[in-house]
Amino acid sequence: MTVVNRQIQLASRPQGEPSADNFKLVEATLPALAEGQVLVRNHYLSLDPYMRGRMNEGKSYAQPQPLNEVMIGGTVGEVVESKNAHFAVGDKVVGMGGWQEYQLVDASQRGVLQKVDTTHIPLSAYLGAVGMPGVTGWYGLVKIINPKAGETVVVSAASGAVGGAVGQLAKVRGARAVGIAGGADKCRYVVEELGFDACIDYKEHKDVKSLSAALKAACPNGIDGYFENVGGMILDAVMLRANAFSRIAMCGMISGYNGEPIPMTAPQLILVNRMKIEGFIVSEHMEVWPEALKELGTLVATGKLKYRESVAEGIAAAPEAFLGLLKGKNFGKQLVKLI
Amino acid sequence: MTVVNRQIQLASRPQGEPSADNFKLVEATLPALAEGQVLVRNHYLSLDPYMRGRMNEGKSYAQPQPLNEVMIGGTVGEVVESKNAHFAVGDKVVGMGGWQEYQLVDASQRGVLQKVDTTHIPLSAYLGAVGMPGVTGWYGLVKIINPKAGETVVVSAASGAVGGAVGQLAKVRGARAVGIAGGADKCRYVVEELGFDACIDYKEHKDVKSLSAALKAACPNGIDGYFENVGGMILDAVMLRANAFSRIAMCGMISGYNGEPIPMTAPQLILVNRMKIEGFIVSEHMEVWPEALKELGTLVATGKLKYRESVAEGIAAAPEAFLGLLKGKNFGKQLVKLI
Repeated sequence: MTVVNRQIQLASRPQGEPSADNFKLVEATLPALAEGQVLVRNHYLSLDPYMRGRMNEGKSYAQPQPLNEVMIGGTVGEVVESKNAHFAVGDKVVGMGGWQEYQLVDASQRGVLQKVDTTHIPLSAYLGAVGMPGVTGWYGLVKIINPKAGETVVVSAASGAVGGAVGQLAKVRGARAVGIAGGADKCRYVVEELGFDACIDYKEHKDVKSLSAALKAACPNGIDGYFENVGGMILDAVMLRANAFSRIAMCGMISGYNGEPIPMTAPQLILVNRMKIEGFIVSEHMEVWPEALKELGTLVATGKLKYRESVAEGIAAAPEAFLGLLKGKNFGKQLVKLI
Repeated sequence: MTVVNRQIQLASRPQGEPSADNFKLVEATLPALAEGQVLVRNHYLSLDPYMRGRMNEGKSYAQPQPLNEVMIGGTVGEVVESKNAHFAVGDKVVGMGGWQEYQLVDASQRGVLQKVDTTHIPLSAYLGAVGMPGVTGWYGLVKIINPKAGETVVVSAASGAVGGAVGQLAKVRGARAVGIAGGADKCRYVVEELGFDACIDYKEHKDVKSLSAALKAACPNGIDGYFENVGGMILDAVMLRANAFSRIAMCGMISGYNGEPIPMTAPQLILVNRMKIEGFIVSEHMEVWPEALKELGTLVATGKLKYRESVAEGIAAAPEAFLGLLKGKNFGKQLVKLI
């Protein structure tokens, strides 16, 4: 069959804040399948903050996104044509399909496509709570923060796909979960729907002193673990309330993604409080994925791990949805629905 | 016997940089020994950067040094009178005798006084390479940095009692050791006497860019471990050269001890390089002391762990020697000789 595929490519690298001009929509007819290949129609595209880093040139933990190529990204979809014995038409699969409607992949490479079961878990959840964001939260919480029952765990970007999982997983372990999010609606959702013990609206706090006072009120026994998605003033405020032997899992620092300076004001607190701070990237810890996905999948299937999705419609909407995500306009996991 | 004891007390808390006025010399006659007590004549007093922190009021990992009481400090000396069956006149002992000529202690409390063997190890070494500074270096290097052969370890304040041990212990483990110290003399000593592979004179570098370039030259394969004694610009420069999965043992940040702001400019590097940063205080890890002291003692006794001492004479000289230490005027372990 002849398939016309539409995809979003990186057209130019942003100077500071990215804009829609940095992207372009490209249309192409796909070639016929070769032996071993699978054609997947992508149902959902995942948009994630890490993509902002890939748009820059220069040294980071990953190669930069090449110009004039399809934007990197996780996808879930359905096999619509197969020349590979391990995949049949109709299989639901998760992969790194990129910002496009179809992907043509050599499925004989191990791990490129993963079949998933949608009996008890919605397909889109494999891009969120039961996917990379969920495992990211799980790794930082379980492997770095490792909270004991009764300890207090704080997470920034708490209404997001990663942060929401962190707090709910902390609650499962008997810890107190305190979120930080932007706006009263998000904070209400974090407490009322996700079951956090408290949530602080950072937009109500102009400086580190005010935010630190709010943290003191929400964390009467101090902070034992912090899952960092944001950086800047929020990190400074958390460090002022950190307990002895507290742990920080450093997952993202979205406040500095456009090159803003985001110094840590008082690193001497690391010493004074004998803190441990650890940066991590979940794709470097594939050994934990089976254990993490098992817990996350069970919790989602039984309704114990909740999440919300912001869904943009159609591949052409991806750039604006991504720019909105970087400004916190999304509410929960940001997806693009392609079908 | 009637013993007149002279001691240095904290007279007032410093505002910013401390001065001699913050201390006072007090003389008193000691009472007769009670049952279980031991009278120790202190031979050497140890001066250490951590004491600066104790002079401040307010929250830190330890109680502040009380005003109008003898300054805290490690000492080595000799038992001159004993009403305790475990200690005899002539025993050499290490303890926390404070800034004074004699200490009268209830030696029935376990760990208050430790007998030491001076057959192969000089008495003063128990305040340095085979004492708290040596174990401090050992803990940070072995338990946090844990270098593999071929990795590169950088240490600031490299000519000091702690830093010198760190680099030599790294060399024993097959790592490349690079020091940072203040002045050409200290750097020459670090390389020629202590056997580091290279040493950078931070005084020759006015800004982070220049220091970072010097680190690049001295560490052609990047930095895998950093032992932090200083903070500020030096930490920033090291982080710019840190490898993926590098480790920082945070032991001290002497550049901020007088309240100067010492922000960490780019904490996002913790994430980009998946670094681990850990603050520690060696007195909270007593479980490693036997293992550490065994290695350190063997290395000193066999001449494989070298060190230098700066020795001030007489208890009255302690305050000026301490102020000099804070300014880096000492060369190696700072002691006060009392006899």
